[in-house]
Amino acid sequence: MVARAFGASSFILADVKDNEVKDAVQKISASWGGKFDFVMEFPWKQVVNEWRRKGRLVVHLTAYGENIETSDVMTKIRAANKDLLVIVGSQKVPGAFFSSEVSDYNVAVGNQPHSEISALAVFMDRLYDGRELGREFDDAKLRIVPQKHGKRVAKSGKTGNLEQQI
Amino acid sequence: MVARAFGASSFILADVKDNEVKDAVQKISASWGGKFDFVMEFPWKQVVNEWRRKGRLVVHLTAYGENIETSDVMTKIRAANKDLLVIVGSQKVPGAFFSSEVSDYNVAVGNQPHSEISALAVFMDRLYDGRELGREFDDAKLRIVPQKHGKRVAKSGKTGNLEQQI
Repeated sequence: MVARAFGASSFILADVKDNEVKDAVQKISASWGGKFDFVMEFPWKQVVNEWRRKGRLVVHLTAYGENIETSDVMTKIRAANKDLLVIVGSQKVPGAFFSSEVSDYNVAVGNQPHSEISALAVFMDRLYDGRELGREFDDAKLRIVPQKHGKRVAKSGKTGNLEQQI
Repeated sequence: MVARAFGASSFILADVKDNEVKDAVQKISASWGGKFDFVMEFPWKQVVNEWRRKGRLVVHLTAYGENIETSDVMTKIRAANKDLLVIVGSQKVPGAFFSSEVSDYNVAVGNQPHSEISALAVFMDRLYDGRELGREFDDAKLRIVPQKHGKRVAKSGKTGNLEQQI
């Protein structure tokens, strides 16, 4: 959901199969719009190798990498101007993730321990200079109408549009 | 962990008691440094009321609020220049969170569903203009030495400092 909300075009859940996650992500897209692919089961090495073979970049988010704020790593990634595969793992990832055979860049969203999902959100927010948070999603059945106070959604359906306080 | 890494001075886990979370947060601070308070069990209403009585601001992060990117809500919050209590809930929060009696501002880190923890990270990253991700933590026993590839930590102990590849 974070990848989708922050502007990714797809999400690859490598090595494992989890239909619950897949269903949840597809339900979100069906209601809230946008095109977002969810792929799973492929081994991570295959995903990475195919990506690199096409000359695209792999970015690994890890607290051990180059600091997103104090180093020039974001400048270099932006200057490369290539499609990115962003890899995030759980607490223990394969050592190879840190090597130059897998990751072109190891990027640290701060060098303090926190959460992979937050690292992904902040990385993407900075990559897109915040623009991704203002965009509209195509074919949305549900759309939030931002409010100072309270909750309001707009629903699009066969019978037209309905805006309601919830 | 996200609150700490992104520059908060303390975390209040309202209404519930969870010693596992408390221990985990305190262990992180003991190893990685910095002063970070963890408080729990107080009812949320009491926390909010005391905070507001002191004339401080309450910000509720919710997808239903004013968009952080396309509205002027961050400008207003920065201009107020007051201490902030940032409240985030799980999927279902009390309706009162959205009212002006509780929240001075309802801020949406995008109006798409994603995760509370990512919303907190991005909100704080923007609030501090990214500076929080470059700061050092006092009294750290463990410190990451950022690397382009590989993992390196510096350990401070009674026997001096040791830097090692891990």
